[in-house]
Amino acid sequence: MRKIGIHEIEDIALGAALLGAGGGGDPYVGKLVAIGAVKECGPVTLLDPSEVPDDALVVPIAMMGAPTVLGEKAIGGDEYKTLYDTVSTFYGKPIYAFMPIEAGGVNSMLPIAAAARLGLPLVDCDGMGRAFPELQMVTFTIGGGSATPMALVDEKGNSCIFRTVTNKWTEELARSVTMACGGSVSVSLYAMEGKFMKEYGVHGIVSRSERLGSAIRKVKEVTDTTPEEAFLSITEGFRLFKGKIADVLREVRGGFNFGKVVLDGIGDYKGQQAFVEFQNENLTANVNGELLATTPDLICLVDTETFTPVPTDALKYGKRVMVIGLKCFPLWRTEEGLNLVGPRYFGVDTDYIPLEERCKGGNGHV
Amino acid sequence: MRKIGIHEIEDIALGAALLGAGGGGDPYVGKLVAIGAVKECGPVTLLDPSEVPDDALVVPIAMMGAPTVLGEKAIGGDEYKTLYDTVSTFYGKPIYAFMPIEAGGVNSMLPIAAAARLGLPLVDCDGMGRAFPELQMVTFTIGGGSATPMALVDEKGNSCIFRTVTNKWTEELARSVTMACGGSVSVSLYAMEGKFMKEYGVHGIVSRSERLGSAIRKVKEVTDTTPEEAFLSITEGFRLFKGKIADVLREVRGGFNFGKVVLDGIGDYKGQQAFVEFQNENLTANVNGELLATTPDLICLVDTETFTPVPTDALKYGKRVMVIGLKCFPLWRTEEGLNLVGPRYFGVDTDYIPLEERCKGGNGHV
Repeated sequence: MRKIGIHEIEDIALGAALLGAGGGGDPYVGKLVAIGAVKECGPVTLLDPSEVPDDALVVPIAMMGAPTVLGEKAIGGDEYKTLYDTVSTFYGKPIYAFMPIEAGGVNSMLPIAAAARLGLPLVDCDGMGRAFPELQMVTFTIGGGSATPMALVDEKGNSCIFRTVTNKWTEELARSVTMACGGSVSVSLYAMEGKFMKEYGVHGIVSRSERLGSAIRKVKEVTDTTPEEAFLSITEGFRLFKGKIADVLREVRGGFNFGKVVLDGIGDYKGQQAFVEFQNENLTANVNGELLATTPDLICLVDTETFTPVPTDALKYGKRVMVIGLKCFPLWRTEEGLNLVGPRYFGVDTDYIPLEERCKGGNGHV
Repeated sequence: MRKIGIHEIEDIALGAALLGAGGGGDPYVGKLVAIGAVKECGPVTLLDPSEVPDDALVVPIAMMGAPTVLGEKAIGGDEYKTLYDTVSTFYGKPIYAFMPIEAGGVNSMLPIAAAARLGLPLVDCDGMGRAFPELQMVTFTIGGGSATPMALVDEKGNSCIFRTVTNKWTEELARSVTMACGGSVSVSLYAMEGKFMKEYGVHGIVSRSERLGSAIRKVKEVTDTTPEEAFLSITEGFRLFKGKIADVLREVRGGFNFGKVVLDGIGDYKGQQAFVEFQNENLTANVNGELLATTPDLICLVDTETFTPVPTDALKYGKRVMVIGLKCFPLWRTEEGLNLVGPRYFGVDTDYIPLEERCKGGNGHV
């Protein structure tokens, strides 16, 4: 148990941008929401999963929809109270703690805001260890957990509760309401008991984000090696490519951002070409015609000088980026995990091969 | 208080097809559902509105979506039980009676099925006196009634409850979920107390449907006048046109059936042309370039020989039809009523002029 305040939120947000793997939404707006809540209501208590009783009700909080829309609509003051009331009434008991469902991107921040506003602790655990675009894509689905009863509220005061026969149906119904509400809403889903959270959650992910963020901020201060080597060592990242953005193709379909960024090699990679395809998050990294990484491993683009993560929203012609791969949470590499978030689910016609094996040929570099 | 069984259901369905004003869905599939329920669970008690206590909970039941999809998906056995449980739990008291929200089309039938299956009475009252395409288009909206908490269930077992800030938002959210569920769902909405139902509902509409249906069946048996005159007299209909269907244009957009049927005059109307435009229900009747009727008055097409109502789904080249106008429920002619269901709401650029005034020129005929 420890407190997280404004300083920690800054680091968590920076780490969450990396774990967003290009998507999950720039945590910037979420950070403002979280800092605003902490300034008003005080710091938030962060609990280790082991500190949560087995029978306690733990409720993930998130925003659903397009993070860019969140920046325009923001979040009113009452949404989290409405979510709390709806869920605790349904279960007939108080909520013990909130948690993030998704540690990457903007959804790393909103549970902090909710915890601050309701005076509840936050659990250091999520259901992805990164960001993913659809709501059934959580480790809790592998554990047989149900996304519903799922509560959804918008900033106008509209709300609804879903109960569905599968988590894929939750995604279908909640996505359609999210679009109807203007493209961005606050939700609580996968409400669960402490025991289940401990068994299937990604433990320590908030602290990991914070460590990543802190390290990225300080990477220029290292003296025993180059900042780049220091960055790769801290993140345990595989260097896949370095290049200048030559083209960005984008398309919005069904509430998702699809696209592709094309890179012309720089430095050691001069004369080479790479591209990264994304659906909200980066899906594949293709270097000189060879796949070096695919979902569910994390493919992240960072600025070559500052090592600040570059989300797909911020891809711009001429920007120099390094592409790195990070190993995903082990549960995603199981057959059940790959059915949920493997390349074929996203329409990429390749088997999943772990990042570290794809990089053995020498193209990748730890 | 009286019982309605299979014979009454047949007549109500036929009358409801006329009150559907071209839309509301062919009651045929709904009739099978209602008759199936009555055969299994016995006849339904029909209550006059005055027989309902002021503080009793009265709950309208309906299907939402495309009636043609209902024919393919049908309705499982458990939907109405789920709706009952959801609503009565929410209000913390039992449901006293069901009622139709819409007397025209297929939604005339489903509350009978629900009442039979749950052993509850049905109130002889609805919120339209006809059929309309969107869920805020009820007299209860004029009375300030809220569509929510609205419960929605599909045949797969998915369900949700909405609470919205306006009835128009209910329409938006519920419509999007209906589409996501495959285009047809069962709903309960505008749950209300007996007092409110008595003040704003369209009283006696189930009995009126039954009388209309019975009269249409027997119209050929009249001896003192022609069947057509008898039909117009019974329905209090204005004859607007008689013609052969020359063309039918259809388009499905946003879950609605839009279109236009073009008629070449026959008999007294030989050499003349008319067209009727619809959005699920018929919106306007245009004869020789002159508007003779618009929503919210009812525009109905019936077979020239049998006087059976012809819904827009069944419009076919060469069919001979009579177009009639029926006066709508008086509350629809108020400013508030016309804001909800007047011609301009549907994008028809004309003021509402009551049917009987438009027909004064001699073109229409009682």
